[in-house]
Amino acid sequence: MIDLVKNYSIMARRMKKSIIRELLKLTARPEIISFAGGLPDPEAFPIDMVEDIIHTVIKEHGKTALQYGTTEGELILREELVKIAAANGETITTDNLLVTVASQQGLDLVGRVFLDPSDPILVELPSYLGGLQAFKTYGAHMIGIPVDGDGIRTDLLEKKLNQLRAEEEHYKFIYLVPDFQNPSGVTLSTERRHEIIRLSEKFDVLIIEDSPYRELRFEGEAPPTLYSMDTTHNIISLHTFSKIFVPGLRLGWIVGHPDIISKLTSAKQSVDLCTPGISQFIAAEFCRRGMIWTHIDLVREIYRKKRDLMLKALDIYMPDVPGLRWTKPQGGLFLWLVLPREVDTEEMFHQAVEQNVAYVIGSAFHCDGSGRNTMRLNFSFPSEEQIDEGIKRLAKVIKTALASGTGRGVDLENQHE
Amino acid sequence: MIDLVKNYSIMARRMKKSIIRELLKLTARPEIISFAGGLPDPEAFPIDMVEDIIHTVIKEHGKTALQYGTTEGELILREELVKIAAANGETITTDNLLVTVASQQGLDLVGRVFLDPSDPILVELPSYLGGLQAFKTYGAHMIGIPVDGDGIRTDLLEKKLNQLRAEEEHYKFIYLVPDFQNPSGVTLSTERRHEIIRLSEKFDVLIIEDSPYRELRFEGEAPPTLYSMDTTHNIISLHTFSKIFVPGLRLGWIVGHPDIISKLTSAKQSVDLCTPGISQFIAAEFCRRGMIWTHIDLVREIYRKKRDLMLKALDIYMPDVPGLRWTKPQGGLFLWLVLPREVDTEEMFHQAVEQNVAYVIGSAFHCDGSGRNTMRLNFSFPSEEQIDEGIKRLAKVIKTALASGTGRGVDLENQHE
Repeated sequence: MIDLVKNYSIMARRMKKSIIRELLKLTARPEIISFAGGLPDPEAFPIDMVEDIIHTVIKEHGKTALQYGTTEGELILREELVKIAAANGETITTDNLLVTVASQQGLDLVGRVFLDPSDPILVELPSYLGGLQAFKTYGAHMIGIPVDGDGIRTDLLEKKLNQLRAEEEHYKFIYLVPDFQNPSGVTLSTERRHEIIRLSEKFDVLIIEDSPYRELRFEGEAPPTLYSMDTTHNIISLHTFSKIFVPGLRLGWIVGHPDIISKLTSAKQSVDLCTPGISQFIAAEFCRRGMIWTHIDLVREIYRKKRDLMLKALDIYMPDVPGLRWTKPQGGLFLWLVLPREVDTEEMFHQAVEQNVAYVIGSAFHCDGSGRNTMRLNFSFPSEEQIDEGIKRLAKVIKTALASGTGRGVDLENQHE
Repeated sequence: MIDLVKNYSIMARRMKKSIIRELLKLTARPEIISFAGGLPDPEAFPIDMVEDIIHTVIKEHGKTALQYGTTEGELILREELVKIAAANGETITTDNLLVTVASQQGLDLVGRVFLDPSDPILVELPSYLGGLQAFKTYGAHMIGIPVDGDGIRTDLLEKKLNQLRAEEEHYKFIYLVPDFQNPSGVTLSTERRHEIIRLSEKFDVLIIEDSPYRELRFEGEAPPTLYSMDTTHNIISLHTFSKIFVPGLRLGWIVGHPDIISKLTSAKQSVDLCTPGISQFIAAEFCRRGMIWTHIDLVREIYRKKRDLMLKALDIYMPDVPGLRWTKPQGGLFLWLVLPREVDTEEMFHQAVEQNVAYVIGSAFHCDGSGRNTMRLNFSFPSEEQIDEGIKRLAKVIKTALASGTGRGVDLENQHE
């Protein structure tokens, strides 16, 4: 065989085996309760609805749904997506839309179209791992801006933008997950959203609004989307059916100015020609029948209950020590646990697996490698019983770690709280 | 809005609006008979089978098919793909397989993992447009090697490889469509396949065997696949369900050494996480029931008949002038028409559209811009009546062009025949 190492591209060299994947391989045993995934609850999948919808799709659109389609996506679906945008106060047309193989493809296409190696981009600290991976592949220089209970710290963001401008650096975009962020569960406040819009104008910088969870709000009022607040066409927003319908269709969409959509479409053409027609027609029919809204209500209710159970279990079982705390998300799939600084969640992971419980180490979400005393917990996938028992096990692991002084106490300076 | 031109990446700048897409926009009128597409015949889609299969899939695998899957692809599908490979004399395991969003994604991933800007690769002249586009995006320096009736000229290929070696150029791979090539319809002879294997060993170079049409053989004996002849693990082969089942699932697969598959899998992870589960389970069930082989027999029969009709119409209507000839493919979807050198098919395209007939200009398939007196004709999509009438119209256009001396007579040196 050819010497692979000497034949791989520079991009290929940037694709490292993910430490998370390696850690997660340890969690495959059935007795492990895993809070590590990001999967929706399959019990909530509207399987009977899907079967009925497919019946209609095959009868009415069989030949079109099974044929090649346009790169932009089926018009019948894009017309439904216009209505979904309208529900968020966004006035768009089908020309503002590109249908994608879920939002991960949206992230990849944005990277492909805007990033050259070493281009600075601004990301949340912590941020969504799939976004970081996609942008890293294109060689982005990622600069992390801390997140607090109201989302990204816009004061620190402005400071950093000023600095980059002074250094004559060509920052390409700001990447944000404004609603029920993955991994922290935090939502960007309305006030800070106004700040983001102001900064986008002031610094003439693109904002990537990654929005997979927005519809899964359990309580409280939703702040407006960045896209709906935009005045200068500087926002690209990414969406997916994965959390509001099912992930197995691999279906998402990008909203943006038609010129940007046109370029992203050219990019998609050489990537995979078009998104599966069958998935698109299923989703279009799901929306057309109005089932999407009743389904979202159902999922909200299931996840709200699970979040409540997890918060309750954390209250009951977690030790009451200074520095140990967690977020209380108003929606989404995740919450975020911060431990005293002497605990290293990567080291502790092995003890957790021994105790048959798993999480994702927080450092994986930090582009600068910090956050070693943090972890992400998923509450959408485990059953109600597993949530209670799993948090009990996790609390035991943490108590032991605190008692034995596990952890290296590293990254103190980088720990933004 | 930000100044897009000043924010696009180098990759984005390589994505030009395709001249073909612009030309094809002219062919949307219903009265136009188009030989320009590459679509399978939707009349051949096994729609009832698909409906029945989906019923089974949803009942038996609903929760799995609609959930996130592994990046490698569903095991149940990969096990079926092992059997398809066996039918081609290839001994592989599921570790040799990566399921993709059809073979276009296979092309993109190969580019991503192996190509840096300016890397030379060797392609057929003419070659598949989607491959050229994918590799161009990664900045490949494409070197065209002429194709004759037996496929790529291996003598010229060896000469070029020697030259590149002498120039200390790091050629990355040879890209081939060995069976019923798109666009020419030509099949690489067994003798030349042995030569390709020899050159791969001699020059230690990877071969990309793109194989979307192989199963659609109407007559004659199939030469062995390059993958089955390989002794050094230097072959990556790309496959798709688009032509042997339906394109709307967007489902394909890559076969290669497990180390290469592993790297391509890492690449796919940041591109789209995984291929749609619903598509994978449908295809797996289609294979499991053995329907794939009866369906291939059906499609072969339909396309063979259409090819015969097109060949017959060409014999009847085309003017008998020196230099006008066409290939007689033993399978696939396309044939290739070569005109006297004074005819420019791009210029003639507008007259063809006026006469309500369309084709793809041959120069689009030539990485060096040559082939201006050639065109690709598709026989799988148009109806039998359209084939006869369309060729009649095309012959009229060609006669007029020959009489009026349309065309610039360019690219004489580059015209390999």
